[in-house]
Amino acid sequence: MLTTFGALTDQSPAKDQNTDLASSYDAVRRQSEFLCEPLETEDFVIQSMPDVSPTRWHLAHTTWFFETFILAKHCPGYRPFNPEFTTLFNSYYNAVGEQFPRPRRGVLSRPTVREIMDYRTDVDRHMRKFLDGFNAVSQADLAYVIAVGLSHEQQHQELMLTDIKHVFSCNPLYPVYRPGKSCGIETLARMDFHSVAEGLISTGHSGNGFCYDNERPRHREFVEAFEFADRLVTNADYIRFIEAGGYDRPEYWLSDGWNVVQERGWTAPLYWKRRDGEWWNYSLSGMRRVEPAEPVCHVSFFEADAYARWAGVRLPTEAEWETAAANVAIEGNLVENGTYHPIPLDAAGSAKGPYQLFGDVWEWTASPYLGYPGYRPPDGALGEYNGKFMCNQFVLRGGSCATSRAHVRLTYRNFFPPDARWQFSGFRLAR
Amino acid sequence: MLTTFGALTDQSPAKDQNTDLASSYDAVRRQSEFLCEPLETEDFVIQSMPDVSPTRWHLAHTTWFFETFILAKHCPGYRPFNPEFTTLFNSYYNAVGEQFPRPRRGVLSRPTVREIMDYRTDVDRHMRKFLDGFNAVSQADLAYVIAVGLSHEQQHQELMLTDIKHVFSCNPLYPVYRPGKSCGIETLARMDFHSVAEGLISTGHSGNGFCYDNERPRHREFVEAFEFADRLVTNADYIRFIEAGGYDRPEYWLSDGWNVVQERGWTAPLYWKRRDGEWWNYSLSGMRRVEPAEPVCHVSFFEADAYARWAGVRLPTEAEWETAAANVAIEGNLVENGTYHPIPLDAAGSAKGPYQLFGDVWEWTASPYLGYPGYRPPDGALGEYNGKFMCNQFVLRGGSCATSRAHVRLTYRNFFPPDARWQFSGFRLAR
Amino acid sequence: MLTTFGALTDQSPAKDQNTDLASSYDAVRRQSEFLCEPLETEDFVIQSMPDVSPTRWHLAHTTWFFETFILAKHCPGYRPFNPEFTTLFNSYYNAVGEQFPRPRRGVLSRPTVREIMDYRTDVDRHMRKFLDGFNAVSQADLAYVIAVGLSHEQQHQELMLTDIKHVFSCNPLYPVYRPGKSCGIETLARMDFHSVAEGLISTGHSGNGFCYDNERPRHREFVEAFEFADRLVTNADYIRFIEAGGYDRPEYWLSDGWNVVQERGWTAPLYWKRRDGEWWNYSLSGMRRVEPAEPVCHVSFFEADAYARWAGVRLPTEAEWETAAANVAIEGNLVENGTYHPIPLDAAGSAKGPYQLFGDVWEWTASPYLGYPGYRPPDGALGEYNGKFMCNQFVLRGGSCATSRAHVRLTYRNFFPPDARWQFSGFRLAR
Amino acid sequence: MLTTFGALTDQSPAKDQNTDLASSYDAVRRQSEFLCEPLETEDFVIQSMPDVSPTRWHLAHTTWFFETFILAKHCPGYRPFNPEFTTLFNSYYNAVGEQFPRPRRGVLSRPTVREIMDYRTDVDRHMRKFLDGFNAVSQADLAYVIAVGLSHEQQHQELMLTDIKHVFSCNPLYPVYRPGKSCGIETLARMDFHSVAEGLISTGHSGNGFCYDNERPRHREFVEAFEFADRLVTNADYIRFIEAGGYDRPEYWLSDGWNVVQERGWTAPLYWKRRDGEWWNYSLSGMRRVEPAEPVCHVSFFEADAYARWAGVRLPTEAEWETAAANVAIEGNLVENGTYHPIPLDAAGSAKGPYQLFGDVWEWTASPYLGYPGYRPPDGALGEYNGKFMCNQFVLRGGSCATSRAHVRLTYRNFFPPDARWQFSGFRLAR
Repeated sequence: MLTTFGALTDQSPAKDQNTDLASSYDAVRRQSEFLCEPLETEDFVIQSMPDVSPTRWHLAHTTWFFETFILAKHCPGYRPFNPEFTTLFNSYYNAVGEQFPRPRRGVLSRPTVREIMDYRTDVDRHMRKFLDGFNAVSQADLAYVIAVGLSHEQQHQELMLTDIKHVFSCNPLYPVYRPGKSCGIETLARMDFHSVAEGLISTGHSGNGFCYDNERPRHREFVEAFEFADRLVTNADYIRFIEAGGYDRPEYWLSDGWNVVQERGWTAPLYWKRRDGEWWNYSLSGMRRVEPAEPVCHVSFFEADAYARWAGVRLPTEAEWETAAANVAIEGNLVENGTYHPIPLDAAGSAKGPYQLFGDVWEWTASPYLGYPGYRPPDGALGEYNGKFMCNQFVLRGGSCATSRAHVRLTYRNFFPPDARWQFSGFRLAR
Repeated sequence: MLTTFGALTDQSPAKDQNTDLASSYDAVRRQSEFLCEPLETEDFVIQSMPDVSPTRWHLAHTTWFFETFILAKHCPGYRPFNPEFTTLFNSYYNAVGEQFPRPRRGVLSRPTVREIMDYRTDVDRHMRKFLDGFNAVSQADLAYVIAVGLSHEQQHQELMLTDIKHVFSCNPLYPVYRPGKSCGIETLARMDFHSVAEGLISTGHSGNGFCYDNERPRHREFVEAFEFADRLVTNADYIRFIEAGGYDRPEYWLSDGWNVVQERGWTAPLYWKRRDGEWWNYSLSGMRRVEPAEPVCHVSFFEADAYARWAGVRLPTEAEWETAAANVAIEGNLVENGTYHPIPLDAAGSAKGPYQLFGDVWEWTASPYLGYPGYRPPDGALGEYNGKFMCNQFVLRGGSCATSRAHVRLTYRNFFPPDARWQFSGFRLAR
Repeated sequence: MLTTFGALTDQSPAKDQNTDLASSYDAVRRQSEFLCEPLETEDFVIQSMPDVSPTRWHLAHTTWFFETFILAKHCPGYRPFNPEFTTLFNSYYNAVGEQFPRPRRGVLSRPTVREIMDYRTDVDRHMRKFLDGFNAVSQADLAYVIAVGLSHEQQHQELMLTDIKHVFSCNPLYPVYRPGKSCGIETLARMDFHSVAEGLISTGHSGNGFCYDNERPRHREFVEAFEFADRLVTNADYIRFIEAGGYDRPEYWLSDGWNVVQERGWTAPLYWKRRDGEWWNYSLSGMRRVEPAEPVCHVSFFEADAYARWAGVRLPTEAEWETAAANVAIEGNLVENGTYHPIPLDAAGSAKGPYQLFGDVWEWTASPYLGYPGYRPPDGALGEYNGKFMCNQFVLRGGSCATSRAHVRLTYRNFFPPDARWQFSGFRLAR
Repeated sequence: MLTTFGALTDQSPAKDQNTDLASSYDAVRRQSEFLCEPLETEDFVIQSMPDVSPTRWHLAHTTWFFETFILAKHCPGYRPFNPEFTTLFNSYYNAVGEQFPRPRRGVLSRPTVREIMDYRTDVDRHMRKFLDGFNAVSQADLAYVIAVGLSHEQQHQELMLTDIKHVFSCNPLYPVYRPGKSCGIETLARMDFHSVAEGLISTGHSGNGFCYDNERPRHREFVEAFEFADRLVTNADYIRFIEAGGYDRPEYWLSDGWNVVQERGWTAPLYWKRRDGEWWNYSLSGMRRVEPAEPVCHVSFFEADAYARWAGVRLPTEAEWETAAANVAIEGNLVENGTYHPIPLDAAGSAKGPYQLFGDVWEWTASPYLGYPGYRPPDGALGEYNGKFMCNQFVLRGGSCATSRAHVRLTYRNFFPPDARWQFSGFRLAR
């Protein structure tokens, strides 16, 4: 199976690149529908908090992307499936025009799921026709936009999972998305720190292959010597922090984080519940006991940072992370694994770490999300994709159990505000 | 067709009363399902504001009523369909236990519509069996609770219509619930005032037949001489108020009302939109031009009161309304009519009014909602049905185009806060 | 001393009426300044919640009233002390023009207290000159406006006390306004109920003497037989309600009241604090132990109503109150007493009650605040004085320990929203 | 004059250091009182928004600092002036104990200004006695805490000015703090950019002299070649941005910034008002016309960033700023100048810039406020001084017209959230 669309800007022959793009298109679009299979019609409609979008909306918005940026602009004679959708399914592109207000996405029952599926089918039909006659080499700019569209849909696939998890978690019936089972690993691995020497390093994307604008330009940065933990922080680790009164002691917290803890009454990660003296947490396979050996998940930057302070260490910067991960194979517990949940490290007999860099949980770094030196957002609406969010957010690295293998990269920069917890987010330590 | 369950406490033979109750039960329950026929599955799920409940919820809550107050208490061996439903579908009965928070009803996608229909079927099956062996005369108290359950479901049928109207109105696609057409009456009737002499009158329910606790006891009240308009205020009337700057002039408004006007930016009734110099309004048949001869609808008490002040008159009290309506037949544009919208008065050649007392729109009165002298709420959970809301609400009389014929009565007291507009609420003048 | 200005519309000679008005003017104005004597300059500035106004503001606003409605309109050539004050010290009179936003009164440090005192002196000088040549008989309308201005200032004198009490109560230093001492009465009087027969009674103000527009017209009302408690509910009574779990049991509360209890975490009257197992409350003489025999004070309508429900009785209506109080002398623990706090009933050896009808605490009634039948607000800005507040408020009767003797009347109608507690408000029972 | 307390950790003799500290103490404490001279008693009390503290509070809190961290800990037998002040005047030190809630500082009228002045006098008396016997060399740690206390008071002196400016600006009377006059410079200087070569530079404080913990450790950073504007952006510059529709065009704004612009209705810097087609702004000398040649002031990071984007350039990072300013004398329009307002650049005939680096306005940089590599907050309560705020804030450099000459340094890092505008904040461009 080929879903990397990584060859896009390569030296490979145009014909192959076109084939690559077309089959990537099919694979990515099919994946969205695969993820919806376990859902009932009613599930597609709910917005359980402003950050969450209804599944219906994700399905339509990713389709709108291709309609707006490819078909409407580059297919002469294309007539929009429904002109109202331009506003309804525009997320935040001011350059495209008005947007239906984000926190109100959950008041829309129409178009129905079936109509949105028809919309997908129609746009897919036009896109396939368009890709038939397309030359990815001579039209490299357009090929890039299509690749952004596919990468964009993969991001929304992850959001579909995190959003439906939030929706289900609000329901006292705790619906099961897909049944799963504990993987049986209960041994707690020790945590070792690997040393990295100081140096003027380079980070960011270079050369061929697709990347987002925010991964460029590759640039130099001076990094002091540091030590990097070989594994993620686990539930067992984190429970020690809870039991040490971590959520009651302001000295471990950033001031903003402490305010959030007080206002929202946080006492544990999102989805954790205390029942008869034991911790349970909601997963996409239903409510179950917290597994000690699993990486801790659904914690905010504030919690990751407080834990690190309590442990007398700190979070790595994104430059440190990228340096430490530079030669590690991109494999792990990604969405193709079908667990939809982080799994314990099985390091027995394996090569020397660091482990768990890719998949399982996005790793909070100590780095605020900023443009790299010399960064400029692209012109036009796609300039709004990344650049305008470079404020009050922190970078996460490495992908999660809800991320596509074809989506994540060494240089990939995810970002969320420091109080966000509904993503599959965990962390690793450095010092 | 028999849906009045009016004979309940009558002198008629027990056998007839039982039959009456059983067929009323079937008719009322079927009506809820009839009203859902035009809906897509997605429509059942939405809560567009805290006052609105998802249609699914109405279907389940009305069923929960019979399960909780009849089956669970009076059917030995009855096992609840799903024990979680006790909390999920309890609206506000503290005596029954916890409630799922009202403003969060819209985050639940499960149980699905199909599951709720199964729940209805199951409860209906048990209820029919229960009613088979039931003696409405010897078990008058229980017969009363069943009658409350049916009346309760009729209230929720009206809410299903007003709520789905609100849901659809938030959608820029403006879905059509059931197609309808203008009735073609464009003549504006004149407004006459009928005089009623002063006197010590009695109001409230007496004698046989079902009524709510808040309609009792029948009691004496001294009413000064007054004049009572023979028809409802129309859109044409109301547009004159708008054009006279009614929404910009604080002198016509109660202080609280003026604050609401400012804060919410009201400039017209709910569902009205200005397009190219003309007023349009959303109806359950879609968006259409405002018809001048129709009764104005979806106005708050504040707007009704401001209009009256502007017109130099006032709203009637509920005692005045009941006196004026005392000998009028209960007929009009009720839900059985299938318009789901108020219609113009066709007074040509008809008898002397007052007209439009029943159906079309609930009429705001000048009366705060209070217990009548000597009122005591019943013991137990049903004591929460009416009594605890007797504060900061105003009484409306007469039923609307969304009210069942079998539901409304001369003495019926509806009540809503003075800023509520999503009901089919209009008004009539007095002086 | 003469502060009643009650003779205003009397048949007494014009000369006497003028003298009466002028000396009332002096007495009322002096009283405002007397009440400020214990304050530090800093105390005049604070607005501790939106309902509270800074003392400076009360001093200026009452002066603005005379400047706006008398001097600016009826003194040719009068030049406003400072034109900016027109907006700054307008409370809510839309007919007079814009208002500085109420919740922002506490951000103003200027004009200083000294400047406001200068403003008072200047307006007083002009008013005295004006009253010299004034004929209260031939200019009866204007005399009425002046009397409203004086009555208005007396209302604000009460607010000055309740507002400064709220300000001081927010300060952990608990400042003392004027030292006071317990009156030493510790005997708990029994509560008796007096019976009143049913009848068509008349309430409201009639005849001569000043009253507000909302006390008119005198009108007939049918009242069923009732029983009326001879004394106020005491702290001892109320503590039994608290100890019976009153604040934890929704069945005693109106639905809106229960929401308020939950949201604000009420567990006792305002100003009560639990210290080492005992109840203390803040008074204008500082923090002190709750005295069992004192009337309970600083309770909302919701609390009064819940107490009555718990006790199996109810609150009286205002018609019942006025009937029961009709022949009782207007005397009691009013502001001239200098206690600034309700005092226990000393009924030993006294005449037959009802006692404590005037002074001590304003008594919540079961009556929503509405216009009497036939009520019309006056034309012009003074029409905004009472009429526009006739919604979502309840009537209180009888005056408090912060009310002037010359201010209260049998027919006097005070009104506040049902959740308000910072007034000296208590209650009495009926059944 | 000696107010630098810069020699603290120097090699100078202990005796001189002690003298230096004592006279710095006197000078700094006197300055707070000097700044209060123009205020009326009422002015000391107001909190016009949660970020603002009453002047009284600043006077007390800075005193509390010395009482808490020096006298209470290091003066045997010291008895607190008033034990309640421990909580009342604790700002945010969790390690010291509870705090009176920040947004409620404006509800306190007591202690009065006079009492707070007595508190200052008393603490000063004890502090002088303490400093008499103090050895700044052998007790270097304690000397550092005293220096922090003085630096802390200087920060609050700046806040006293920015806060009272905000208080006065809310008053339609627009009080004058101290009269001032335009400096008469109307020539608009051209803007030149100076080039700086790439390199591995060091920033942060090193060697002797006082600095805050957040200025350390001095560390290496790789900086690309950049160009640095030789002057601040002026009102004239900024008005061009406004007139180009800057506040209406989302493409110039960070997403968070655009939300703030919409929600708060920003159309110009804080304190600007449009009157008859001209821009006016409130200054501590009253309301006056916007001077084109003055540096723009009272803009947020969001506005500075949007301006730079509109101009096709960017803001400098703090490393760039510190590099460019490394050899510039620390002089400019600081608080000792007595203008309390930024002044135009008079570059005629002067040496080559960059100009205006110190004084006039704090300059927003592109750098989020973070700890330098290897940063660790100090142990104990003073660890809360800087470290816990390292999140969602941006660094400003260079001091303002409200900053003491003895307070600012090349390495000084001020920080505020990106939407804050009430400080004297402006900006300079880079590319």
